[in-house]
Amino acid sequence: MISFENDYSEGTCKEILDELTKTNYSQATGYGKDPYCLKAAKYIKKAVKDDKVDVHFVPGGTPCNILACSLLKDYEGVICAATGHINVHETGAIENTGHKCLVAESVDGKLTPASIEKVYKAHPDEHMVKPALVFIANSTEIGTIYTKKELTAISKVCKKLGLYLYMDGARLGSALTAKNNDLTLADINKLCDLFYIGGTKNGALLGEAMVIRNDALKKDFRYNLKNKGFMLAKHRTEGISFYKFFEGNLYFDLAKHANEMAEKLRKCFKDTKTKFFSNTTTNQIFVILDNEVIKKLRKKYVFENWGVIDDKHTAVRFVTSWATTKENVDTFIKDYKNIA
Amino acid sequence: MISFENDYSEGTCKEILDELTKTNYSQATGYGKDPYCLKAAKYIKKAVKDDKVDVHFVPGGTPCNILACSLLKDYEGVICAATGHINVHETGAIENTGHKCLVAESVDGKLTPASIEKVYKAHPDEHMVKPALVFIANSTEIGTIYTKKELTAISKVCKKLGLYLYMDGARLGSALTAKNNDLTLADINKLCDLFYIGGTKNGALLGEAMVIRNDALKKDFRYNLKNKGFMLAKHRTEGISFYKFFEGNLYFDLAKHANEMAEKLRKCFKDTKTKFFSNTTTNQIFVILDNEVIKKLRKKYVFENWGVIDDKHTAVRFVTSWATTKENVDTFIKDYKNIA
Amino acid sequence: MISFENDYSEGTCKEILDELTKTNYSQATGYGKDPYCLKAAKYIKKAVKDDKVDVHFVPGGTPCNILACSLLKDYEGVICAATGHINVHETGAIENTGHKCLVAESVDGKLTPASIEKVYKAHPDEHMVKPALVFIANSTEIGTIYTKKELTAISKVCKKLGLYLYMDGARLGSALTAKNNDLTLADINKLCDLFYIGGTKNGALLGEAMVIRNDALKKDFRYNLKNKGFMLAKHRTEGISFYKFFEGNLYFDLAKHANEMAEKLRKCFKDTKTKFFSNTTTNQIFVILDNEVIKKLRKKYVFENWGVIDDKHTAVRFVTSWATTKENVDTFIKDYKNIA
Amino acid sequence: MISFENDYSEGTCKEILDELTKTNYSQATGYGKDPYCLKAAKYIKKAVKDDKVDVHFVPGGTPCNILACSLLKDYEGVICAATGHINVHETGAIENTGHKCLVAESVDGKLTPASIEKVYKAHPDEHMVKPALVFIANSTEIGTIYTKKELTAISKVCKKLGLYLYMDGARLGSALTAKNNDLTLADINKLCDLFYIGGTKNGALLGEAMVIRNDALKKDFRYNLKNKGFMLAKHRTEGISFYKFFEGNLYFDLAKHANEMAEKLRKCFKDTKTKFFSNTTTNQIFVILDNEVIKKLRKKYVFENWGVIDDKHTAVRFVTSWATTKENVDTFIKDYKNIA
Repeated sequence: MISFENDYSEGTCKEILDELTKTNYSQATGYGKDPYCLKAAKYIKKAVKDDKVDVHFVPGGTPCNILACSLLKDYEGVICAATGHINVHETGAIENTGHKCLVAESVDGKLTPASIEKVYKAHPDEHMVKPALVFIANSTEIGTIYTKKELTAISKVCKKLGLYLYMDGARLGSALTAKNNDLTLADINKLCDLFYIGGTKNGALLGEAMVIRNDALKKDFRYNLKNKGFMLAKHRTEGISFYKFFEGNLYFDLAKHANEMAEKLRKCFKDTKTKFFSNTTTNQIFVILDNEVIKKLRKKYVFENWGVIDDKHTAVRFVTSWATTKENVDTFIKDYKNIA
Repeated sequence: MISFENDYSEGTCKEILDELTKTNYSQATGYGKDPYCLKAAKYIKKAVKDDKVDVHFVPGGTPCNILACSLLKDYEGVICAATGHINVHETGAIENTGHKCLVAESVDGKLTPASIEKVYKAHPDEHMVKPALVFIANSTEIGTIYTKKELTAISKVCKKLGLYLYMDGARLGSALTAKNNDLTLADINKLCDLFYIGGTKNGALLGEAMVIRNDALKKDFRYNLKNKGFMLAKHRTEGISFYKFFEGNLYFDLAKHANEMAEKLRKCFKDTKTKFFSNTTTNQIFVILDNEVIKKLRKKYVFENWGVIDDKHTAVRFVTSWATTKENVDTFIKDYKNIA
Repeated sequence: MISFENDYSEGTCKEILDELTKTNYSQATGYGKDPYCLKAAKYIKKAVKDDKVDVHFVPGGTPCNILACSLLKDYEGVICAATGHINVHETGAIENTGHKCLVAESVDGKLTPASIEKVYKAHPDEHMVKPALVFIANSTEIGTIYTKKELTAISKVCKKLGLYLYMDGARLGSALTAKNNDLTLADINKLCDLFYIGGTKNGALLGEAMVIRNDALKKDFRYNLKNKGFMLAKHRTEGISFYKFFEGNLYFDLAKHANEMAEKLRKCFKDTKTKFFSNTTTNQIFVILDNEVIKKLRKKYVFENWGVIDDKHTAVRFVTSWATTKENVDTFIKDYKNIA
Repeated sequence: MISFENDYSEGTCKEILDELTKTNYSQATGYGKDPYCLKAAKYIKKAVKDDKVDVHFVPGGTPCNILACSLLKDYEGVICAATGHINVHETGAIENTGHKCLVAESVDGKLTPASIEKVYKAHPDEHMVKPALVFIANSTEIGTIYTKKELTAISKVCKKLGLYLYMDGARLGSALTAKNNDLTLADINKLCDLFYIGGTKNGALLGEAMVIRNDALKKDFRYNLKNKGFMLAKHRTEGISFYKFFEGNLYFDLAKHANEMAEKLRKCFKDTKTKFFSNTTTNQIFVILDNEVIKKLRKKYVFENWGVIDDKHTAVRFVTSWATTKENVDTFIKDYKNIA
């Protein structure tokens, strides 16, 4: 079976595996104070062009989102899209830290200054949750990306309204290497109060790197990490992943490969006049297939159902990753052209 | 100024005030174990025709909702209407106890079996909140009421899906004495797992009575009360209100009066061909008025803006209560007929 | 039966009952914005000699403690005595808001600068809770009071260590009218960041008044109130109690009466050479009685067991209140002298 | 520098590293449903001789403790030793899930049936937290272990009082291979309701295995995992560690090695008549050293200060692990004999 199911069902990339092996028998202090984490933080500061940020390593994306939202006060809420990962796919983790998700309208999975302001204005007094943080994902949960202009406008409205801006970067690599991207890590750092650089879906052994620019949110973050159970004795595994990512260009190279593989699939779907469910430029492709076609493909390929379109058609998702081989993509294309 | 702003801006009804005065200088154990609370519980058991229910007195409606929702497990959620009081007007109190509000479609402010089942089915696995409790209000937040047929159908779907059914009865008196009502307290008790009988908005000094029928939810409820800060030394004030309510027919008499006053206003609006914003039979009336008319009325009357309709029109709410006098209603009608 | 069981098993004092009656049929906005609450706040500002404080009315003591502690961040904790009400008698309400109680050594139920600093120093890094607030009660849970010197020293150490100082004033009236007291409301306001003036145990119908001096804690407190379920539609009942308390000297007069009744009992116990369990000057008296004596007294008097001393002796608590009559105290004294 | 600082500052053992490398480029479903986790669960069921248990993989020890305690109701508490890891060293993580730690007396870091029952009896009603779960660690936080007799007695008292028994097994390997141990994994599974087998401190890449025997606690545990942020896309790293541990005897072999190295150190301290701070048979050794000796040792060795004894002496901790080499231990022994 060849899988296009997701981008986290892999081990880790060769460079990180080699480094893990190389460093395995040396001792290193625990809880994120090991030399690997320190080195990784140093490289990330360089990558975001801001040596004043705080960098923390966290074992997963939901943990990052929990940590960001738990910086709020009890009565404060989080503005997000209906499709926002925190709103649906985290089993109420944000609410379990005490905070309401306030759904704002979105366009192509993206919030807009207007949609943020609308939610803000609808919560004018103490009988309602006080909006305090805006949650966006880049790339979004449906594979689209924010442009510099869009993110700048959102950042501006957040500042105006006194809202923190937080970016879930589970698939930030894919976003930043998309052909239509015009944002850099440094831009994102300037425009957001805090964000995370996703490793789990981009070839890390595991883990993500939380980057905090806003001084008001830096204080005591390690207490927060421990209090929520996310400070591991073994953060070295994350440290190794991230210093390999950012000592050179590895993070972007891996993401770029995923995007290139996606582009090949996208071209195949276009060539065959397959209907797209959404327009993406990242490593997620959503297309509408005939149920019979799906049935045939499933004999050899793994991919996710996304939604029922009608009795005969279903939206499905194909995901490529750093580990997707050109060979497998070519095989798929050949098979698909025969079947579709 | 004559106020139709709401039904909780009053003192307490004469019968309760007299009893408060009469009993004031006698001592009584605190924390809800006083003879007044015990007597009130006895009368309520009789009123719901079920002597196995547990009855607890609680200082307000949001406290009742917090208590009901905090019976859930951390990862469980509450199905409610978008207009549900817990969803908007309780400053995230439910989320602060750790539980997500899952918005279901509603018709006239009311959930339906289909809308409940739709939300249930949209949450099929452990990556999403597990729906566990259905929150409804009767009368609803927009003044409509559930019929016996509707509530029976909802109760049935809840049992089928393994969901608790909880009714917010902040305005239960008004609902049960509405002209088109066919439910009794005994029906509600049979069809819901737990519900509360609202006192605050129906002439009590303060407080509500939580009635728990489902045995699974009875255990340790007093621990729950204390843990959330809602077990008062002075529950006697609530006990006195509720035994006066239910030793005879006072609770319903007060509600009926509020409805009658509302009916007079409603007739006036109908007579003058005023446009209704929603169709209610309880003590809340929502009409759409010309902004000029509103301006004139506000010189003498207090009432709430509900929503902007267009540049020239606004939806407004008139609320009557046990304390609304026929005299004030008549004055309003006379003035309104002149102004409108 | 004559009860010395506690000071909250009463109705309300005559002045407040009269005012309740007098104001009963007038309408007043809900949620703490009624003219009674506003007037009460004004009088309290005068009483604490600081018109910049914020005053909020809260239905009980545990609610006040929950509100104060929920101002902390998730990983912050509360320093208190082992006997602190929040540590034992609130069913984990503080922990339920997410905060650990850090027990400090106490002398006569009172914390000391040294005991506070010791706990602070024992929590030096992010692997432990960060101490953030010091909880004291005055009078304490065992009836003792803080002197001005003691409170000043505690306030100083709190400032030095960056800890908020919060005083639970459930029995503040009795403390401030004790014969050995040298503190004023104004002193307490200056020395604490926030505190509450207890009404429930001093003749109010119900409720307490939270006074916040520290500007950092004022912001959004009404959101906090609503989010935790403590913002009632009917705060007018509390407003009436507190403006009657503080428009003149009523609050202190009621407390003084309780202390005087306690003093009579204390004298009786001294005269009869009864052994004291602790030395108090407020409205709580703790003595060690022979179990046979207790048995005889219980035929006519209600009072609480406090702890087993040995096979034959038990520590018991007698509490007087604003409502304790001289007649009942005299009867007790006569009976006790016969029995003991 | 040679480190005896702790047992988690290592990479992973050779067998696991090899398997990681071997399986690295194969795809596997995420969120704990990969074949490695499934295989690991199968082997663990065999190891505990109970194929009905549920096994879940968790990234760390604090996460396990949070998960176990969050099974409780809001008003329920956890009985533990003052030295219990959850009580001090988890930054209030348990309280942050809403539950109070109730400290029971301990002997050599171990709870006893009497100490548990004493705390239970001290919490008799709804004004106090309801004890619901007993937390023990084996080996304990100070290196001692429970005997079969002791654990059986605790299990019995828990059943009698209706308390869940949970064992923190961060160092379970070392406990079960201690020379004076008479417990097996199967015994522990029978006597506890749930427990975890620690990997982080015994050579895993990272992670622990939670074993749930009590059916009442099994339901919806995966919801709990996700809701708290501990369900990782990359649980495969834990799955690989644990199936290597338990497909043969690796888990115990690694632990045994750590104990043997500790035994050599222990003998050295005994031979040199060094004073022991506590008597342990596991991989932690606590001795009292002269401050001058400590100073000299620190030039070459890393170890933790445990507590000040007097002006001239300090208690220190030496920890050995699966990775501690005989060579380093011998070097230390030689040096220590010269210095001491």
